[in-house]
Amino acid sequence: MTVREGREFLSIPGPTTVPDRVLNAMHRPAIDIYAGDLLDVTHSCLADLREIFRTEGQTYIFAANGHGAWEAALSNTLSRGEKVLVLESGRFASLWGEMAKYLGIEVETLERDIRRAVDPAAVEARLRADAAGEIKAILVVQIDTASGVVNDIAAIRKAIDAAGHDALLMVDTIASLATMPFEMDGWGVDVAVAGSQKGLMTPPGLSFNAAGPKAKARHESAGLRTRYWDWTLREGPEHYQKYCGTPPEHMLFGLRAAMDMLFEEGLEKVFRRHRLLAEAVRRAVEAWSQGGVIDFNVSEPAERSDSVTTVLVDAAGSAQALRDYCRDHCGVILGSGIGDWTGRAFRIAHMGHINAPMVLGTLGSVEVGLTALGIPHGKGGLQAATDFLGQSIPAASQERRAAATG
Amino acid sequence: MTVREGREFLSIPGPTTVPDRVLNAMHRPAIDIYAGDLLDVTHSCLADLREIFRTEGQTYIFAANGHGAWEAALSNTLSRGEKVLVLESGRFASLWGEMAKYLGIEVETLERDIRRAVDPAAVEARLRADAAGEIKAILVVQIDTASGVVNDIAAIRKAIDAAGHDALLMVDTIASLATMPFEMDGWGVDVAVAGSQKGLMTPPGLSFNAAGPKAKARHESAGLRTRYWDWTLREGPEHYQKYCGTPPEHMLFGLRAAMDMLFEEGLEKVFRRHRLLAEAVRRAVEAWSQGGVIDFNVSEPAERSDSVTTVLVDAAGSAQALRDYCRDHCGVILGSGIGDWTGRAFRIAHMGHINAPMVLGTLGSVEVGLTALGIPHGKGGLQAATDFLGQSIPAASQERRAAATG
Amino acid sequence: MTVREGREFLSIPGPTTVPDRVLNAMHRPAIDIYAGDLLDVTHSCLADLREIFRTEGQTYIFAANGHGAWEAALSNTLSRGEKVLVLESGRFASLWGEMAKYLGIEVETLERDIRRAVDPAAVEARLRADAAGEIKAILVVQIDTASGVVNDIAAIRKAIDAAGHDALLMVDTIASLATMPFEMDGWGVDVAVAGSQKGLMTPPGLSFNAAGPKAKARHESAGLRTRYWDWTLREGPEHYQKYCGTPPEHMLFGLRAAMDMLFEEGLEKVFRRHRLLAEAVRRAVEAWSQGGVIDFNVSEPAERSDSVTTVLVDAAGSAQALRDYCRDHCGVILGSGIGDWTGRAFRIAHMGHINAPMVLGTLGSVEVGLTALGIPHGKGGLQAATDFLGQSIPAASQERRAAATG
Amino acid sequence: MTVREGREFLSIPGPTTVPDRVLNAMHRPAIDIYAGDLLDVTHSCLADLREIFRTEGQTYIFAANGHGAWEAALSNTLSRGEKVLVLESGRFASLWGEMAKYLGIEVETLERDIRRAVDPAAVEARLRADAAGEIKAILVVQIDTASGVVNDIAAIRKAIDAAGHDALLMVDTIASLATMPFEMDGWGVDVAVAGSQKGLMTPPGLSFNAAGPKAKARHESAGLRTRYWDWTLREGPEHYQKYCGTPPEHMLFGLRAAMDMLFEEGLEKVFRRHRLLAEAVRRAVEAWSQGGVIDFNVSEPAERSDSVTTVLVDAAGSAQALRDYCRDHCGVILGSGIGDWTGRAFRIAHMGHINAPMVLGTLGSVEVGLTALGIPHGKGGLQAATDFLGQSIPAASQERRAAATG
Repeated sequence: MTVREGREFLSIPGPTTVPDRVLNAMHRPAIDIYAGDLLDVTHSCLADLREIFRTEGQTYIFAANGHGAWEAALSNTLSRGEKVLVLESGRFASLWGEMAKYLGIEVETLERDIRRAVDPAAVEARLRADAAGEIKAILVVQIDTASGVVNDIAAIRKAIDAAGHDALLMVDTIASLATMPFEMDGWGVDVAVAGSQKGLMTPPGLSFNAAGPKAKARHESAGLRTRYWDWTLREGPEHYQKYCGTPPEHMLFGLRAAMDMLFEEGLEKVFRRHRLLAEAVRRAVEAWSQGGVIDFNVSEPAERSDSVTTVLVDAAGSAQALRDYCRDHCGVILGSGIGDWTGRAFRIAHMGHINAPMVLGTLGSVEVGLTALGIPHGKGGLQAATDFLGQSIPAASQERRAAATG
Repeated sequence: MTVREGREFLSIPGPTTVPDRVLNAMHRPAIDIYAGDLLDVTHSCLADLREIFRTEGQTYIFAANGHGAWEAALSNTLSRGEKVLVLESGRFASLWGEMAKYLGIEVETLERDIRRAVDPAAVEARLRADAAGEIKAILVVQIDTASGVVNDIAAIRKAIDAAGHDALLMVDTIASLATMPFEMDGWGVDVAVAGSQKGLMTPPGLSFNAAGPKAKARHESAGLRTRYWDWTLREGPEHYQKYCGTPPEHMLFGLRAAMDMLFEEGLEKVFRRHRLLAEAVRRAVEAWSQGGVIDFNVSEPAERSDSVTTVLVDAAGSAQALRDYCRDHCGVILGSGIGDWTGRAFRIAHMGHINAPMVLGTLGSVEVGLTALGIPHGKGGLQAATDFLGQSIPAASQERRAAATG
Repeated sequence: MTVREGREFLSIPGPTTVPDRVLNAMHRPAIDIYAGDLLDVTHSCLADLREIFRTEGQTYIFAANGHGAWEAALSNTLSRGEKVLVLESGRFASLWGEMAKYLGIEVETLERDIRRAVDPAAVEARLRADAAGEIKAILVVQIDTASGVVNDIAAIRKAIDAAGHDALLMVDTIASLATMPFEMDGWGVDVAVAGSQKGLMTPPGLSFNAAGPKAKARHESAGLRTRYWDWTLREGPEHYQKYCGTPPEHMLFGLRAAMDMLFEEGLEKVFRRHRLLAEAVRRAVEAWSQGGVIDFNVSEPAERSDSVTTVLVDAAGSAQALRDYCRDHCGVILGSGIGDWTGRAFRIAHMGHINAPMVLGTLGSVEVGLTALGIPHGKGGLQAATDFLGQSIPAASQERRAAATG
Repeated sequence: MTVREGREFLSIPGPTTVPDRVLNAMHRPAIDIYAGDLLDVTHSCLADLREIFRTEGQTYIFAANGHGAWEAALSNTLSRGEKVLVLESGRFASLWGEMAKYLGIEVETLERDIRRAVDPAAVEARLRADAAGEIKAILVVQIDTASGVVNDIAAIRKAIDAAGHDALLMVDTIASLATMPFEMDGWGVDVAVAGSQKGLMTPPGLSFNAAGPKAKARHESAGLRTRYWDWTLREGPEHYQKYCGTPPEHMLFGLRAAMDMLFEEGLEKVFRRHRLLAEAVRRAVEAWSQGGVIDFNVSEPAERSDSVTTVLVDAAGSAQALRDYCRDHCGVILGSGIGDWTGRAFRIAHMGHINAPMVLGTLGSVEVGLTALGIPHGKGGLQAATDFLGQSIPAASQERRAAATG
């Protein structure tokens, strides 16, 4: 017996739910690539990405996925034989580092506790030790979708500055952009990397770089530059140069619609929405964890991200059984544990085009699954989540009244 | 502050959520109306409607909404000055009766308790009193979306038979078809009426009649027949005659896809899904009702329908405030109280393309709203709903194990 | 061998090609029917239909096809036993008349030449003979899609006035509205009928009435009124009353988008576009007719409509063979001869969402078919069509120059 | 005045018209990337690409445009400092060569007549002169969309073999694949490159490599390999490795639908359809060229491609004026002259989802524009095109009769 035949709920950390408006924007005939509307789309997307990255720097759109944008960031700024420091906090900084190694870059990874965020003090210490300035760039993700950790990018920047080190700070915001604040210029990030398919609510297949002045300067002498990824060539006057070839136009139509939605809601409100819904998830997980089997992966509450929660299940096979149940019986697709968490965790994504009923419906289905499978868990998860939201989100009339008397 | 910017949840009792597959089926060019694919669509839809109504009788598809199908049912079987007996159990049988009156039919309505279903014994008594056989037809709805009542059609048929009365039994299944069993031939229903936009998961704009042999016989002499609605003319050999004019082809493409989905799931499973999800809703409402302000409209548990639940809120303005909150803050559209329930109830629809996370997300949002607005309610509504579903829907592996040892 | 696998060209006189923008507008979730956006859609559609009908009268939208709107027009204004005069000029006025007869109305049809439009003088003569005023309404179509005739509605009005007759003038604009001028108030039309699926570029399933003051006065005492079609009830305050039940919302989203397109282009430009493209078709047919087998159905050039051209093929089986060829080998769906033209004509529709390449591509495919099948035809059909368009549509720069020196 | 407001005709050589079925396939929710349907899509697409490339070699799908696939082909097989020979025949082989140069590869370009295809004899001569085997690879396009030339790949292979040279033969089939025969294994091609947006009828954003055994052997020691493009890594066991990161799933859904359409029609029939429609275009251009101003760019008839025709206009400004006219007045988007043809040519694409009315509608609109603008041209272009098609495509019944008596 199943109660699955409605709209499937995709709660994996990317691709996220694509809004109907985005799909609709993509459902249109192809158009000319040399003139007309498409040029406006390109121009406005590049400008609006600057707004979202919060930078005066240059933005680039690649017909590629996020790994492509990783390669673009590396090849535009580094040379064979140079060294980068990888700040692992889950899985993805290391994968980015492997990509660097493959390009002939020397890669050093900072040790870590796998349930914690990057420690800025450790970064500072390592950089102080690099008196010769061998480390040319630092690679870190803002939110790691494997661990569920959020790193404090501003603090990492301060650590670099405290060490007086000259390395570029390169940040992967693939799982964080448009879900929480990111201040590229304000925080002193030199290169930012993003993809279309998470907070930006567009199907996968587009990715982005943003480059600040220091990165642009290094770019001049970077030895790994190739034509497809090259920032300079993408700044050429011809429209097709912006994409090094045919623009991926349907993807761009989707991105345009998605960014319109973000601006209509307002980025600050987008961030607050994510924070509230993430906290609702955490309240439920907190309650479930009283059963002794379920636990947050990230041990430190302040280091839990607002876009994805990785949940440990300390019972062999149970994480997978729960995912199977939710998919097969309820129509909810949870993320699996990957990397170090393979087989012992599941993940609930709460990012992008996501609202209260989607999050509560997901949590409800998880609770149904925990019950059906007999996985020990504390009661009251949903209650904690609805209590939190009900107390945190006053009715508009109350808001108005509060404002009037405030 | 809102947490609404995801997929809007439509929890009104029609139109219901249209599956992506149905919308996709409608997103296609127009096609020839005299030959080709469209003829197959018509043929298969008429046949499959028979399967869904569970009848060997004739089915008809109208380019019209449900009220149009009401008028079709009346005008095909009755004459000016004849009398019908309306069995009200909410709001819609009376509206159907008003339509009859407008056609020049004499209408009598059976008295009732507005929180109860039709009482078959009262029907029998009234018919026994009609020795002269003045009553030519009985109008009743299977599920009334205003009250949330489900009527026992088989029992009403038995009451008619017990009275030895010859009236046609005409049943409106608009809000029940494909959400619960309906046995047109098995129960002795003479005319069934339905619409596209509820259990059939298609946008509004199509409606249906099914007619059994007794109705077809009455049809011969019916004085109210008009060309647009006429059953006989719709049985003509030309394709356009099936629709008395241009077939509403995009709507038909949608209906075809929706019926495919129903058959792929299996009607029995569709009914069980509705029953389980409805019961989950009832468990939550039961818990909330402990607060003394919230209550089921339908006082008798067995008379609560599996497609919509009408919830009374005994606090002035609170039902509307709750609907506003859910819509504006959470992105959930609840049904309002209508007719006798205007201003003092809200409705949760749980029919059509609906699964566990959709229902739990709706209930969760209601609970958030109750909390935010300070509407007194018992705790544990979501918990009761997830407990029920978890206990009622074993994992497939357990099902297999149970089957093996069963 | 075929060269068909591209976009199928639908050249039948309804449903016409649905613009991508209309399909996109329909590809969206269902929404609340009691509040919000849908109310605005209804309000604006009713108002914009007035603009398109060119009337200060009342407009009505039916969840029904065009035949439904016929029945609505009749039942709202007439009583059983009253008499109407049908001005046949093809096929559809007679069908409308049959519908009237079925309602119990007495129907008289004016004799005619099947290759000509209605003769206003004959109308005047007949009405003068009706000294007793037995004729209560006159039924006529503006463009008949079977014959391809366009009738002169203003002249018919003048004929009625000249006869000093009081009958209502009821005009079917289903195949003409938004393809050529129609001046409901200016011409003195009492009731206009239309459908969504031709000039209005929306899938079939919606239809319309517009009623002037004289029709509204007759409505007061009309004996055939029924609740589904009733104009007065549709003017009630509740939103659902506008549709006598659930609004066909996806169809309405489509209509809204289609009317937006018409107003953006401008109705005058829409009419000129149709006139130019229709003339291009006529130039081609004129050339082909030199072969002695092909001919216009409408013998009088001034009576050939701008929305559809009926082409006679005086060779047994050839019309059907040509349609088969165009469909199977080229992907072009031509209209068949219907009614009196069954088997001896084909029809080229040139209405709605139609531009130069669509018309020229259709004509080109017909010419390919004529050649492949060896159907005798004069050469130079396409040449005549392109010459005409090239000479009639100056380049914008030339237009500007002409304007400057004009 | 314009006659443009119908379906816009896109006649540029990529992106081509996207079939409704492909757009529909892309209009669906995102799905899991680790399990389920997406894995089947990947598997079947990789296999079917083999079928389309006609190879037993390995295929790869990149989230990238065609330039990305160029870079992939180069970086997977070559090392810095190695030399390639570019066989220019328009514009695109040189651009590919520039990409190679940017990667540190030495590039030599074979001289040419810009209105001719590559001369295999010249290739053989150059390779014979390379006794030292310095040339490691030969880059050539099958159809060049700038010039409209088709190169004889089999003859080039023979030339290489005749010279006894070991260079890899790398062929860009972006504008030819699925529009004409390509026999990767049969012709001895080592690496083939393609994109989604031309013959494959899918929006731009996916591109492909196919690699034969000799290329795979060179790959072992290629020095330019990077992780994003690397063939070997893409053969890893994990699904995401096939795409080096998140699969571009909506694009893949589109590609799957497009390949289904190709196989349903049958590749041989697809090629014949292109050949016939291309010849129809050439017949029209031939007629127009009698006016002395218009001419084919490709001087040798046998070297004119079946996917795009580049048309010279020997009158300053006229090519652009014609494109403007067709776009603004008729809704037809013609390709512009690019590279050496900037400002003095226009291009008619006839590839992908294209049928008789689309081609004839495009030609008709060009003829309208030539007339409106007073550009001298021979009469009878459309006539020649329809005569050709009519004579080349017998009706099915005639085909059957011919077959019976054949």
